[in-house]
Amino acid sequence: MKSYQTTLITGLFISGLSACQTHVETSAKTDIPAQLQQTALASSLGYDIVESLTVEVGPRLAGSPKDVIAVNWAMNKLTSLGFDKVYKEPVQVPIWERGEAKAKIISPVEQPLVITALGGSVATPVEGIKAKIARFNSLEALQQATPDDVKGKIAFIDQKTVRHITGEGYGKSVGGRSKGAIAAAQKGAVAVIIRSIGTDHDRMAHTGIMRYQDGVPKIPAAAMSNPDADLVDAMLKRDPNAVLELNMSPKDLGTNTSYNVIAEVTGSSKPNEIVLIGAHLDSWDEGTGAIDDGAGIAIVAAAAKHIQDLPQKPARTIRVVLYAAEEMGLIGGKAYAEAHKTELPLHYIAAESDFGAGPIYQIDTKVNEKVFAQVQESIKPMAYNGVALGDNQASGGPDISMLPALGVPVASLRQDGRDYFDYHHTPNDTLDKINPKALAQNVAAYAQFAYIMANSNIVLTPLHNESK
Amino acid sequence: MKSYQTTLITGLFISGLSACQTHVETSAKTDIPAQLQQTALASSLGYDIVESLTVEVGPRLAGSPKDVIAVNWAMNKLTSLGFDKVYKEPVQVPIWERGEAKAKIISPVEQPLVITALGGSVATPVEGIKAKIARFNSLEALQQATPDDVKGKIAFIDQKTVRHITGEGYGKSVGGRSKGAIAAAQKGAVAVIIRSIGTDHDRMAHTGIMRYQDGVPKIPAAAMSNPDADLVDAMLKRDPNAVLELNMSPKDLGTNTSYNVIAEVTGSSKPNEIVLIGAHLDSWDEGTGAIDDGAGIAIVAAAAKHIQDLPQKPARTIRVVLYAAEEMGLIGGKAYAEAHKTELPLHYIAAESDFGAGPIYQIDTKVNEKVFAQVQESIKPMAYNGVALGDNQASGGPDISMLPALGVPVASLRQDGRDYFDYHHTPNDTLDKINPKALAQNVAAYAQFAYIMANSNIVLTPLHNESK
Repeated sequence: MKSYQTTLITGLFISGLSACQTHVETSAKTDIPAQLQQTALASSLGYDIVESLTVEVGPRLAGSPKDVIAVNWAMNKLTSLGFDKVYKEPVQVPIWERGEAKAKIISPVEQPLVITALGGSVATPVEGIKAKIARFNSLEALQQATPDDVKGKIAFIDQKTVRHITGEGYGKSVGGRSKGAIAAAQKGAVAVIIRSIGTDHDRMAHTGIMRYQDGVPKIPAAAMSNPDADLVDAMLKRDPNAVLELNMSPKDLGTNTSYNVIAEVTGSSKPNEIVLIGAHLDSWDEGTGAIDDGAGIAIVAAAAKHIQDLPQKPARTIRVVLYAAEEMGLIGGKAYAEAHKTELPLHYIAAESDFGAGPIYQIDTKVNEKVFAQVQESIKPMAYNGVALGDNQASGGPDISMLPALGVPVASLRQDGRDYFDYHHTPNDTLDKINPKALAQNVAAYAQFAYIMANSNIVLTPLHNESK
Repeated sequence: MKSYQTTLITGLFISGLSACQTHVETSAKTDIPAQLQQTALASSLGYDIVESLTVEVGPRLAGSPKDVIAVNWAMNKLTSLGFDKVYKEPVQVPIWERGEAKAKIISPVEQPLVITALGGSVATPVEGIKAKIARFNSLEALQQATPDDVKGKIAFIDQKTVRHITGEGYGKSVGGRSKGAIAAAQKGAVAVIIRSIGTDHDRMAHTGIMRYQDGVPKIPAAAMSNPDADLVDAMLKRDPNAVLELNMSPKDLGTNTSYNVIAEVTGSSKPNEIVLIGAHLDSWDEGTGAIDDGAGIAIVAAAAKHIQDLPQKPARTIRVVLYAAEEMGLIGGKAYAEAHKTELPLHYIAAESDFGAGPIYQIDTKVNEKVFAQVQESIKPMAYNGVALGDNQASGGPDISMLPALGVPVASLRQDGRDYFDYHHTPNDTLDKINPKALAQNVAAYAQFAYIMANSNIVLTPLHNESK
């Protein structure tokens, strides 16, 4: 939490400077980003929204009964905030039920382990699986293994996730989660279990989506907590023939209709052009979905609400999109891109908040390279809120990650993610992990970004001018 | 972890001074505490012991099959360390099995909660209990409640535990755990659930022993994690009629024979007089018993081993006692006091390590007030290891807490316990929570303390001279 303090104090101090500056300047229009910042930092709206979502809905796995409650909550919440438009668009989502997941070492001595099923995993047989363990330092090591060393065993991918402000350690280790079951099954393993993709040392396993591949047997896939992975590692050093018992009962229950929930602040002069700010409404089922992605919902909804409340609306429409089933594989994001295919050329720029509630320290963009400097100049007021100018290599966030290829400019408002993977996809993703002041700083940044973009005269496209 | 650094760096720096000093002095005898410190700080023995215990045994609930494995581990480990004597003494301990514990809010919206059964609790009916919640700020508030407000409900004691270096916040809130079921049943509650007695904000419930009272109905007793207590509190503010479903299946399975495991370094000239250093062998069942009390076992066993290895043994015998069933109510400690009743006058002083592995910053004693200053003078060498002189109000630790009333002097080597109640009695009590350097500092302190006491010429008794 301490890291927040410095950033925020800096932000607030510069915010003070900003107030002086705007007093000297006379243009009402350029005052507004500073006003939005002050309004957002003084408001508890963002925190109130995520508190409401976590307490009144809580876990909301895509396709589950709680997902329906979440959609209703979102429709009601956005309506009560007084947006010009609130509507929802259907999305077909898978229904996967977690069931139970238990594991223990049964030889040389019994040691119960804390595990969780990976999202989408099949079940073990009812009687469970008992097998020796084939341990690998990484997915790549498993992929290169001799099948004889893996066949009939439980493959254990024991790779640590490194803490980093950008969260880049996640990208380096998450392959074991998403592709581990395929690699293990190809070598003849009966199941795969990974060291959690997480930076904590809590006795909590991190879930997350995994994949199967046509033609490769579907084997059960689970994650164990970091302390449990340490323990298994220490046991294997003493006895390479240690036996693990695994029992999991997840179920695939077909598909269901969920919704992308959308709200708009209608643009004053270019209402058909869209500045999209998004987050995802679904969550994993073991926490209450506070940092993933209740925080994002709070940030974009509160930011748009502060713009909605301005005496004069910006030129373009601000569209808040709360995506369905992000955790199941960006399903709402892909559905939005498909449903709005013909409207995409009218999307001026898009950004998604899906990295918790750590303070934003930098904004990156993906715009036509020739106007990048102009865009940076235009978003300079965000520096008063602690947001530095970054690069032009943004991907925008998971649910909008397909948009640049479709010609839509994006921005990434970079959050301090050092703590994010301590809690990500665990029961520990709860409201107490959110610092209200850091959340408000995020709201201010998104409000400024959306407002400036909705009024900008810069032509951001085409993207493909840029050398790759 | 950072707090360790400063203390240890200071300790090591002073340790350097100590080495210089002892070079100037010529008495071999006064050199030994400094030598013990250097040996202990340079050794990984303590860490190796707790690593061995957590990996090769793990959770070891008193009376369970793992308790038997723990006793065998202790006999083998102490024997392999080469002590002059290793033996065990039988102790009758209760057998309590945890079973499953599940809870969720089922109205106004379903919210699963993370709970754990309190140690000794009875089960709910198989179909569970569904009831409204009567929330209280403290045990005292429940005790003063009107029975009509509690009858037929689940009493919820929602008191936070305050972080403090001495751990004193625990003492202020633990009454809700130990006496909550009695107070709730006396008002007609159908169950009691408490906010965990813990300083963390992890989604883990803290177990611990609870009590029933003859003539008062036995109702199920559980704890929920701090974030869950926050959630229930926020739900009750919206809907005081929220309904909680509780389902627990613990079992009382009678009694079993466990053992106090004992090792001795035989005294050179007063072998019948005893300096007792203890810890407890049993642990709760959800972690691997690393900080509670694997650390204590490592500290006292390694400290005694460093004395065992000295070329000349101290005058008195050093007795290492690893107590059975401390968690079940100091059962091994009481059994020791009873079995050694006639020998207690030969116990020169006793100390127990049962507060994790945080560095020791102070030593308190409970000795005859007239010799307190002399005792403090004698243990001054401990300051080179970062241990300051404290007061004469020590209680000595749980398993030896009954000894002062029986005339035995005690000491309390005070550890920095700021993190202790983050992990205490949770699945999170695992090896990674132990800082090897802080553990070694503890070993050094116990070695110095035991050695100095075993050679002391001060008469520490009678204790009752002291005004109370």
